[in-house]
Amino acid sequence: MDTNPASGTRDFLAGEVTRRRAAFQALRTAFERHGFQPLDTPAFERLEILAGKYGEEGDQLMFKILRRGKHEATGEADLALRYDLTVPLARVVAQYSDQTIEPFRRYQLAPVWRADRPGRGRFREFTQCDVDIVGSAAPLADAEVILAVVAGLTALGVEQFDLQLNSRRALRGLIEAYGVPLDREQTTLTALDKLDKIGADGVVAELRKRGVPEQAVARIGDDLTADELTDRARQVLAETERGRTGLAEVDVVATLVAPNLPAGVNLSFAPLLARGLDYYTGVIFEVHAGELNTSVASGGRYDELIGMFSNRDIPATGGSVGLERVLLLLDDDPGGAQTSPEVLVTVFDAEAAAGAAATASRLRAAGLTVDLYAGAGGLGKQLRYADRRDIRWCVLRGPDERAAGTYAVKDMATGEQTEVDAAALVDHLRARVH
Amino acid sequence: MDTNPASGTRDFLAGEVTRRRAAFQALRTAFERHGFQPLDTPAFERLEILAGKYGEEGDQLMFKILRRGKHEATGEADLALRYDLTVPLARVVAQYSDQTIEPFRRYQLAPVWRADRPGRGRFREFTQCDVDIVGSAAPLADAEVILAVVAGLTALGVEQFDLQLNSRRALRGLIEAYGVPLDREQTTLTALDKLDKIGADGVVAELRKRGVPEQAVARIGDDLTADELTDRARQVLAETERGRTGLAEVDVVATLVAPNLPAGVNLSFAPLLARGLDYYTGVIFEVHAGELNTSVASGGRYDELIGMFSNRDIPATGGSVGLERVLLLLDDDPGGAQTSPEVLVTVFDAEAAAGAAATASRLRAAGLTVDLYAGAGGLGKQLRYADRRDIRWCVLRGPDERAAGTYAVKDMATGEQTEVDAAALVDHLRARVH
Repeated sequence: MDTNPASGTRDFLAGEVTRRRAAFQALRTAFERHGFQPLDTPAFERLEILAGKYGEEGDQLMFKILRRGKHEATGEADLALRYDLTVPLARVVAQYSDQTIEPFRRYQLAPVWRADRPGRGRFREFTQCDVDIVGSAAPLADAEVILAVVAGLTALGVEQFDLQLNSRRALRGLIEAYGVPLDREQTTLTALDKLDKIGADGVVAELRKRGVPEQAVARIGDDLTADELTDRARQVLAETERGRTGLAEVDVVATLVAPNLPAGVNLSFAPLLARGLDYYTGVIFEVHAGELNTSVASGGRYDELIGMFSNRDIPATGGSVGLERVLLLLDDDPGGAQTSPEVLVTVFDAEAAAGAAATASRLRAAGLTVDLYAGAGGLGKQLRYADRRDIRWCVLRGPDERAAGTYAVKDMATGEQTEVDAAALVDHLRARVH
Repeated sequence: MDTNPASGTRDFLAGEVTRRRAAFQALRTAFERHGFQPLDTPAFERLEILAGKYGEEGDQLMFKILRRGKHEATGEADLALRYDLTVPLARVVAQYSDQTIEPFRRYQLAPVWRADRPGRGRFREFTQCDVDIVGSAAPLADAEVILAVVAGLTALGVEQFDLQLNSRRALRGLIEAYGVPLDREQTTLTALDKLDKIGADGVVAELRKRGVPEQAVARIGDDLTADELTDRARQVLAETERGRTGLAEVDVVATLVAPNLPAGVNLSFAPLLARGLDYYTGVIFEVHAGELNTSVASGGRYDELIGMFSNRDIPATGGSVGLERVLLLLDDDPGGAQTSPEVLVTVFDAEAAAGAAATASRLRAAGLTVDLYAGAGGLGKQLRYADRRDIRWCVLRGPDERAAGTYAVKDMATGEQTEVDAAALVDHLRARVH
């Protein structure tokens, strides 16, 4: 039988678990330092909570759960695995309005599931790392989210990156100024959003295909490749009310964020940054890092989503660290995390088992991480086991040592073997291990 | 719309997340100290991996995932949420035989999903905490699993408990000696397994209903209520080969475990302990704690399961800490975990936002957990926010403080407000917070 994990999912053996856990812990610490509190929600939601929230594509990619027992035969689903952490947040905000004090700052690190086509860095089960502030329309909320995301990346070891800011309002102002008709606005944004993937030429081709008037395509194509894109955009934006509003909100957030960025972060206004479509309403951001200029974090203001179950408008702004991508980016030593026990207590023969168990117990009580060889096999096999498990210190006790009231401690790194008095064993090992 | 989490699942707000996380961390530390290494597997498996592994009831209670896209209309499932951590372990052992060095010690703390009828302490999404040693038939492996489970319970704060040992072989020897015919053996074990729930009278009634001969029922009923049950059982077991083998394996494991137990743990031979049926092959154990005598951990040897995907027999022994039950047992102060930020930086007005952001940034860089008020509203509202979020220290800066180059630090616990020089703010707060 095929024993691979299901398509697009992964097994994590010890080294990877430890590495991922350290990354989660780094993010938690960074987010909590910024005043965000943790939230956990179930892996699945009632289907009615999720259905229709992610467009037609989302509905297709959702993992839906069949009804159970006698209802299984209907072939109908009543639950679905969560597709992101934002719709569950909207549900939580509606459900616990008495316990979630606004502005409500929460973070959630948790797996989500999407039946995307698997590929490098794209999985069907992957961890999302979200921070959001719910219930505030203030630019300071956007700034706080961005600073928390930046702190998260820094904590993960990403130290050089570009932080790009834009605003959905500014973007619409720009599109308007380019002379794109209203009924082509969405499709134009969709094309612009692919700039990183398909380049300026690709975007221009897309725009033509999508029926954007040639004059607008020419202006956009011109600006996409311009060195002074930002200056040009500022001029264009200054011409309209919407443009001025959008530009102002970018500038206010930039003013709040810039002085508090670590060295190594390059903040810029990115007038063509689009970041999805239906979702965002205000300031948006994206972080690029690494040689491939990969997007490793992103987010923005989305004032029309969180209130969906609450029967009121609730402003909100959030960001997400692309943990899976960051781990790939930093993936130089995937097995490097230390996960092996510090000590192996070997077992001379079956009669020595009780003594070995007592020794292991004593060492564990002293805070050491200790494996006790629990298989069949002589000393040679046990030392090979220690070697393969990367355990450096082996404790041996044969009849000679027992008679002498000692242990032999073998350093697997050097091969050196030392005779140690029974009473001194704990101190001997502690001095070497820590 | 109903915004409750799906039936049998739970949302965890900040206090509960923190409490659960501390429990996970305690278990990890205990398990790793005992030489076990972590493993993570995906939330779902291909259906063929899980189907038929948990009996008919398991197949009914499994959450099966509908095929996606154009296959959705078939109403068929091709994946299912994991039902336990043991079948995934068997898959991992087959898949990574080159990387998992036997005896392979792994632990896994992860949610599993079962469509059980929800009730107090019974959820459809709950965390299992398993330790297993794969590839060893030695009693030392059983002992190590039991000691790791005991250490896990102790780390969680369960300090007084009964550890009951038995062996499936001994149990079968006993059943045999009671004169239960072979074709009634399974049904007798099923009835005995309910002793804790339905009492001796209930078991006797069950045995009669299940067609166990009256003579055997009488002997069992007699022994179930006997004070000297253990002695009687030892005598009965000594009569048959199977009984002697079973008793010996219990005694060997007890000898290895007993000297290494913390005070407060009461180890006993429980000759009627059955613990499920199809699964276990050797020594089994169960831990009871608390006023309700709840089972809070259990496990045993199961030599015929782990090899199911490997085309070879692989001996294995494992144990499980009932974390959800332990958390209920210890549930005196569910919201007690400290999760609030230490400091709230208030914002006098919109013009003070940049200064407040810089102050927050400075305090965070010094290691403090800091919320920056990101909503609309004056100082009164901001102090109420701090109060509701349980944030003790508020940093205030109005025009007077700005002019004087100072901050006001308000202790929300006492109401006391102190004027602090700008340069001294970090040290002032650090001294109070830590």
